[in-house]
Amino acid sequence: MGDLIFEKAVELLTAKKLTVTFAESCTGGLLCKSVTDVPGASAVLHGGAVTYSNDVKMKLTNVKAETIDKYTEVSRRCAVEMAEGARQLFSADIGVSATGYAGPGGGTDENPVGTVYVGVSVRGKRTAYRLYYPDKSRDEIRHLVTAFAAYITECEAARL
Amino acid sequence: MGDLIFEKAVELLTAKKLTVTFAESCTGGLLCKSVTDVPGASAVLHGGAVTYSNDVKMKLTNVKAETIDKYTEVSRRCAVEMAEGARQLFSADIGVSATGYAGPGGGTDENPVGTVYVGVSVRGKRTAYRLYYPDKSRDEIRHLVTAFAAYITECEAARL
Repeated sequence: MGDLIFEKAVELLTAKKLTVTFAESCTGGLLCKSVTDVPGASAVLHGGAVTYSNDVKMKLTNVKAETIDKYTEVSRRCAVEMAEGARQLFSADIGVSATGYAGPGGGTDENPVGTVYVGVSVRGKRTAYRLYYPDKSRDEIRHLVTAFAAYITECEAARL
Repeated sequence: MGDLIFEKAVELLTAKKLTVTFAESCTGGLLCKSVTDVPGASAVLHGGAVTYSNDVKMKLTNVKAETIDKYTEVSRRCAVEMAEGARQLFSADIGVSATGYAGPGGGTDENPVGTVYVGVSVRGKRTAYRLYYPDKSRDEIRHLVTAFAAYITECEAARL
C-alpha cells in the first residue's frame, strides 16, 4: 500500500487540481509505482516514462545529444532536461526525473555509485538536486530517491 | 531486490539478446520497477511507459479512439494495442501491457474490480490474456499481474 509520503503528495495535488509526471532512469518505474499505489492517483498522474537508455531519454524526453556527450546522462543538466521533457510530453504541471548510479555497477570518480540527480520542472522553473548515498544497496538507493522525489513533488505543489 | 521470476526473465532475455518493454496502466510502473530491480536489466529494458490516462494510451502507445469508445480501455483490444504500440515506441522485441481494474474503485458488470487484461506483442504475434482476481487488494492484484506478465515475457523469450 502507498506510504504516507506518497499519499500526502497525491492528496495535495488532488486538492490543488495539479498533475505530476516522472521520467525515471535509475528508479526504473518505482516513482510511478509508488504514486499509483495510492487509490485515486489517476487524477494527478496521467502517465510517466521509464527512460532507461540514452536513446529513450533523447526520444521521449527530448534530452539533447550534446548534453549526454558533454555531461553524461548522470548529470544535473540531463536530469533537468528529462523533467522538462516529461512535463511537456504528459502535459503535466510538475515534472520530476531521476538519473544516477544505483549500483552495483557503474559510477565514475566524479559521480560514484550512489550518486543520483533529481530534476524538477515546474511552470517557469527548472532545477536539479544532487543526492549521494554511499554504502547503500541498489534497492535502498532507489527507495531513498523515490521518497525524496515525492517530497519534492509535494513541496512544489504547495508553492503553486 | 528482484524476485526470482524477474531475475530469470532478465537472464533469459540477456542470453538471447532480446529486449522487452511495458505499457502499464493498472500496474502503474510496477512491471518496469520489478524488472529494473535486477542489476543488468539495462541490457534488456531500454524504456517503458506508464499509460495511466486514455489520452496517454492513445498518444504514446497508439491506442485507437474507436477501441476505447467501443470496448473501453479495459479490454483485450486495448491491451493488444498498448503492447504493440509500446513495442514500436521502444523498438523492443517483446511488448507487454496491463490494463484493468485494480480497485478499490472502478469496474463494470462485465469486467468487475480484479479484472485485468495483459496484452502481448511479439514479432508477428499479438494476443491478450484476461485475468480475474476477485477479493484481492489493489496491492495484491498489481503484484499478481506483474508476476504473470514476467512469466509471459519469459515464455515468449524462450520461443524466440
